[in-house]
Amino acid sequence: MADDHVYVFDTTLRDGEQAPGATMNADEKLRIARQLERLGVDIIEAGFAANSQYEVEAINRITREVRTPIITSLARCVAGDIDAAFQAVKDAARPRIHVFLSTSDIHLMHQMRRNRDEIMEMAVKGVQRAKQYVEDVEFSPMDATRTQPEYLYELLEACIQAGATTVNIPDTVGYAIPEEFERLIRGVFTNIPSIGKARVSVHCHNDLGLSTANSLAAVRAGARQVEVCVNGIGERAGNASLEEIVMSLRTRRDLFGIDTQIDTTQITRTSRLVSDITGMMVQPNKAIVGSNAFRHESGIHQDAVLKDRSTFEIMDPVDVGVISQLHLGKTSGRAGFRSALKDLGYDLREEDFSQAWDSFKNVVNTQKVIEDQDVEAIIEAIVEERHREKTESPFYTMEQVQVIAGEPGVPTASVRLRGPDGELHAFSAIGNGPVDAIYKAISGVVNEPNQLEEFSVKSITESTEAMGEVTIRI
Amino acid sequence: MADDHVYVFDTTLRDGEQAPGATMNADEKLRIARQLERLGVDIIEAGFAANSQYEVEAINRITREVRTPIITSLARCVAGDIDAAFQAVKDAARPRIHVFLSTSDIHLMHQMRRNRDEIMEMAVKGVQRAKQYVEDVEFSPMDATRTQPEYLYELLEACIQAGATTVNIPDTVGYAIPEEFERLIRGVFTNIPSIGKARVSVHCHNDLGLSTANSLAAVRAGARQVEVCVNGIGERAGNASLEEIVMSLRTRRDLFGIDTQIDTTQITRTSRLVSDITGMMVQPNKAIVGSNAFRHESGIHQDAVLKDRSTFEIMDPVDVGVISQLHLGKTSGRAGFRSALKDLGYDLREEDFSQAWDSFKNVVNTQKVIEDQDVEAIIEAIVEERHREKTESPFYTMEQVQVIAGEPGVPTASVRLRGPDGELHAFSAIGNGPVDAIYKAISGVVNEPNQLEEFSVKSITESTEAMGEVTIRI
Repeated sequence: MADDHVYVFDTTLRDGEQAPGATMNADEKLRIARQLERLGVDIIEAGFAANSQYEVEAINRITREVRTPIITSLARCVAGDIDAAFQAVKDAARPRIHVFLSTSDIHLMHQMRRNRDEIMEMAVKGVQRAKQYVEDVEFSPMDATRTQPEYLYELLEACIQAGATTVNIPDTVGYAIPEEFERLIRGVFTNIPSIGKARVSVHCHNDLGLSTANSLAAVRAGARQVEVCVNGIGERAGNASLEEIVMSLRTRRDLFGIDTQIDTTQITRTSRLVSDITGMMVQPNKAIVGSNAFRHESGIHQDAVLKDRSTFEIMDPVDVGVISQLHLGKTSGRAGFRSALKDLGYDLREEDFSQAWDSFKNVVNTQKVIEDQDVEAIIEAIVEERHREKTESPFYTMEQVQVIAGEPGVPTASVRLRGPDGELHAFSAIGNGPVDAIYKAISGVVNEPNQLEEFSVKSITESTEAMGEVTIRI
Repeated sequence: MADDHVYVFDTTLRDGEQAPGATMNADEKLRIARQLERLGVDIIEAGFAANSQYEVEAINRITREVRTPIITSLARCVAGDIDAAFQAVKDAARPRIHVFLSTSDIHLMHQMRRNRDEIMEMAVKGVQRAKQYVEDVEFSPMDATRTQPEYLYELLEACIQAGATTVNIPDTVGYAIPEEFERLIRGVFTNIPSIGKARVSVHCHNDLGLSTANSLAAVRAGARQVEVCVNGIGERAGNASLEEIVMSLRTRRDLFGIDTQIDTTQITRTSRLVSDITGMMVQPNKAIVGSNAFRHESGIHQDAVLKDRSTFEIMDPVDVGVISQLHLGKTSGRAGFRSALKDLGYDLREEDFSQAWDSFKNVVNTQKVIEDQDVEAIIEAIVEERHREKTESPFYTMEQVQVIAGEPGVPTASVRLRGPDGELHAFSAIGNGPVDAIYKAISGVVNEPNQLEEFSVKSITESTEAMGEVTIRI
């Protein structure tokens, strides 16, 4: 295939969700999928259908509402997984099934306990089964970079003959170094007779900090699909970062001679949405999307950038959507606010818009500068409220919470919760700190064994007036 | 020079400190320098002496107390800077002066406004001046990757002849791609006649996410010094990460055939110290030092790792110091605690040890599991208290703070501060949230114009009982 661009395969909703603590519900997945569509990714890996019926339904919703990108589900090389994947993607405008199987000797010996011939047979049967359902089938030999190359080539040839239209080379454990990975990909092209019938993809992990470089080395060798996550989240140290690969190809088109079809001005917004929903925060020095990525501290650098940006900047912050184009403030009217929401990608019902407008006027009265993030926080609050209303929940809802703390002092909290029975329950407790006190007061009401899964506190914008967020998962 | 290892030049205290918000005081710099010595770095760039007399004194303290690594200060190619750098490092066991000068046409035109001949003359004079003071002189042509290569080679030849013993190739703007950077470094070796008299160094920035790969490509081409920061902090998207380069060379020694002399078991501890002191948090999916870097979420991965770690792990968490060796708990005695502190690298005076022991017993009584971070938080608190006692400060100190907040409710704070005059001042204020209320109450007392520079809240460990940290810089 002679592709005119590098295909971006986003797996934030599958491999990204596998990051410890990043679990998402169906609503959250849909919101991210919509934003990925605006960003212009070619393929969305929406989940791993065999996980649960809930996962199948979450993918179903995405296939109905997100119609431009290809939608795929991952599946192990077993009939049940492949059937579930088809159930999940069957209504997509462009469905794909993505089948994977371990092929390295380390995995064969310790995990699969099968020999190479058995694995080969499983792979071919898996691809054939997927092909009965859909035309677009991807095959991934897990741990490819530690698989014996000749066996890898032979197996991929068989998979292409069985109908695979994309063959993916995952560096599952993040072990590869760019020059050897480039060699492996060149080997794929020279040693697989039917390679012209499939697109070559790569899927790199960041355990040694080399996932972006490995992906780019593969593109140099002819790969035309890159599997990535927004903010580089994923298992362990995560997957290759969408934003780093996209901006490397764009900034150094002189060297690569090929580009993606991503709308880079949506990068910052996508990054924030994923960070907010997953709770996986982005460090200030993260390339492209970190809060410092375009900030200059030293006097020498600041002085030079004022003289000419190109002295210390190779990318324009406007191109990745860092610099706000909204210009909202005290004097903004309803029409300006509505148009800004559209620019941010939100299309609200009239009732929700009125509520957002009221919140916005409140914020304008207390904050001098309105940033995109403030507006996004307003909308997120409304979206979550609607979600809570829709889901008739067997849970407790917080009616009132009050906490007093100080140094020296006794951190004390009181809460009033409405229970599943509709009754109000109140409780107070002393804690080791304000959050601990609230947690203990809640525990006093709920009175069920629970385990703290996540506790994080973060500020959304950088001012004491700005909105903050505390996440407690129990 | 035929080096037996790759020299690690750590610039956390210079380029790392240039990260917006990462400013450190002299005590903090010294604590990091001591830890870098334990980690086994070869060179510490301790600061930029010309910044201030305070910076000179901060570097002086490091030269007196940290005797194993080479200590260097950065200097622009002007007499005053070079003289200040010598004042800063003159008492070091092994002093170095590091001179830099822009050499790319973009910088020459827009920033320096000098022609190539003038720059060449400045460079040579700068190296000569530094050489009058010390034997060990490093020269860096800033923005080398956008400098015309023939001019770069010619200028470096002149600098080596003038006495430079290390020549550094900085990718100042993070523009390079590994294969072209490797080509440039090979060019340095083939086009500079006197290159055998100097060590070749590289200094890569992470704007495109490629700093680790670029540094490793340079090592393949013969570079034997890498300039790095702990956690990859630094200007904009930061510098190459010490931990990623060190662990790549160690893990893939089969491919690189050369290693560093770093004690990798000190990596996690160093990462946490730098993150605590600078306030630059590390994202969970950061390679090597992120909290998820060695966590497996998916059932498939967990199952396989239980069967054999090598299925999904290319590094042993013990090798980078992730897994605690302390085993502290309720039953630990004073001797066990003292020995654990030694393992963590702390050698406390008896009085401080007793205070630490008391805090430890308190924590043990409220927390089931004691992690290294809890112990470190105890020690940090004592170290900071001692620091406050020592520095007779013209500042306000907080005697009491109390805050009440809730939803619905009116966030209200009261503070009592002791002023520089020794008097107590009290004030209360309503805010948009608890932190805003505290901030406004403090502002009410201090009553001086101030600007919020940083506001961040983070939890140190993952439990509601655990210690948290709020940073407000005004």
